[in-house]
Amino acid sequence: MPILTLDQAQALVTDALLRCGTSPTAADSTARALVGAEADGLRGHGLSRVPAYAAQVRAGKVKGDAVPSVTQPRPGLLAVDAAHGFAYPALDRVVADLPAIARVQGVAAAGIRRSHHCGAAGRPVEALAEQGLVAILFANTPAAMAPWGGARAVLGTNPVAFAAPLPGRAPVVIDLSLSKVARGAIVSARQRGEAIPEGWALDAEGRPTTDPSAALAGTMLPLGDAKGIALALMVEILAAGLVGARFAGEASSFLDAAGDPPGTGQLILALDATALATDALERFAVLAGSIEAQPGARLPGSRRLALRARAEAEGLTIPEILLAEIAAA
Amino acid sequence: MPILTLDQAQALVTDALLRCGTSPTAADSTARALVGAEADGLRGHGLSRVPAYAAQVRAGKVKGDAVPSVTQPRPGLLAVDAAHGFAYPALDRVVADLPAIARVQGVAAAGIRRSHHCGAAGRPVEALAEQGLVAILFANTPAAMAPWGGARAVLGTNPVAFAAPLPGRAPVVIDLSLSKVARGAIVSARQRGEAIPEGWALDAEGRPTTDPSAALAGTMLPLGDAKGIALALMVEILAAGLVGARFAGEASSFLDAAGDPPGTGQLILALDATALATDALERFAVLAGSIEAQPGARLPGSRRLALRARAEAEGLTIPEILLAEIAAA
Repeated sequence: MPILTLDQAQALVTDALLRCGTSPTAADSTARALVGAEADGLRGHGLSRVPAYAAQVRAGKVKGDAVPSVTQPRPGLLAVDAAHGFAYPALDRVVADLPAIARVQGVAAAGIRRSHHCGAAGRPVEALAEQGLVAILFANTPAAMAPWGGARAVLGTNPVAFAAPLPGRAPVVIDLSLSKVARGAIVSARQRGEAIPEGWALDAEGRPTTDPSAALAGTMLPLGDAKGIALALMVEILAAGLVGARFAGEASSFLDAAGDPPGTGQLILALDATALATDALERFAVLAGSIEAQPGARLPGSRRLALRARAEAEGLTIPEILLAEIAAA
Repeated sequence: MPILTLDQAQALVTDALLRCGTSPTAADSTARALVGAEADGLRGHGLSRVPAYAAQVRAGKVKGDAVPSVTQPRPGLLAVDAAHGFAYPALDRVVADLPAIARVQGVAAAGIRRSHHCGAAGRPVEALAEQGLVAILFANTPAAMAPWGGARAVLGTNPVAFAAPLPGRAPVVIDLSLSKVARGAIVSARQRGEAIPEGWALDAEGRPTTDPSAALAGTMLPLGDAKGIALALMVEILAAGLVGARFAGEASSFLDAAGDPPGTGQLILALDATALATDALERFAVLAGSIEAQPGARLPGSRRLALRARAEAEGLTIPEILLAEIAAA
């Protein structure tokens, strides 16, 4: 399989997005997020998305020339309108604007409405943690999970991401979806023509399935049964209802060019890490140490960091068929 | 079994706490929380706690005369020192003081340090939602879960609670611990002399167990495997590290009078529900409707509300042996 440096991958994705009518700023931001996710080993949020993204810009489902706008309705709040463009330029604005507010107020939040797929949700919170903040991101996604006891999908897989700074090293980053597995993992399996394990999803009739296409037409199973679905409802309220975005059950797919823009939302919370306890960073290190001292245990996100370092040194291995799809996009 | 009205239960618990040296304010606050949890069917956070609470006050592990103090280090932040008293007076201060700040700032947070068992975590967020806020509570608890791949418990079961207002009806309330089941459920099983199902916990050697005493000496299993443990780490950082409280692995038990005060922490976040989207409450109702319209599905917290109404009408059924323990406390 072909190997691309990160710069080559960035140029390739940017070019594909520009060709379909994405603005230079949005193309650069989006390519950076996709290549970053690919480098981190998160292929479901990586280059596999480019063909579908390009098709959505061409169809007008994603506004390629959208420019996010930001207002500050309260001292601690940013209201971001992604204007049905890609989510990444809006997330970049939050990463740029939220830290100064969080430092003054102690805590700040940004809601992004008329948004789209947020990609690897750990990336913006990691960028905030690198600026000394403890950050949480909640995002809703198109309908994928049914309420507990119900049959119709009205909740997304709804990622939760979290990051906190650690002294002298990369932040700890948690990034998970509330389905048993990320929907992107099923998308990738379909692209690779592979079956999925049982227990990941149900088909449209509510039966267990190992066929990724049948799974994508059905519902995802939550982590932790009823508790996981309750957390997905919490995220739906925070990332969509509170923010003024569309709910999962109202949102079109991130994966194809059909229909209106999905118009989903994200909520990002940021807290000054040392405003309540001046020794917080040292304390975070104590906690990390109590985990890393145990044989077989590791901090969340450490595998991702190792893969990133390898990708920076050795480049990205991209399947021939995906490269052809990106070139044709 | 004896039946007590809520007022009788409140008087009984208050009296037991006063007799062991709790201040009137703290006794009233603590009794209200325990009786409220009992009425909601959350027995693990209800009257079953009274004997252990009384013993901790008598031993000085809980300071019965502690008065929480509050500072505002930043416009959006409250730093609450529970002073090694019960958590409930500190939580009451947060419920009283945080709404005005959240309305002005848009978002506000309160960290409680030198705290104790927060009981039914849904109660303070429900009280905030009744004031028009969307609220999240994170709490850490004494060590109960090992990091994924590790063997030594350094994380608590770490409850997450969430509430959002709904127009013309009680708020939606989510309240869950990140272990597969709440530790309180195992405590209750031990008090009733019952076995626990397999899959809830491991014994001290890491073997599956159905003996509640062996489970309490071992580790709890998380919901959702590695993802649940990652969420427990997030809560540990937010509720303890950020706030200046003790980590799970440093905290003594909530269940007996041995050792120093546990000194755990809580972080409460509150957002003005309508600051980002003026129609947010109506939108929350749309989402709730899309769940309640499905046969077999219900909103989280609805069973709790039904039990509360029944307890208000019919009183609380309390086991004779527990009443005797409370009287002897």
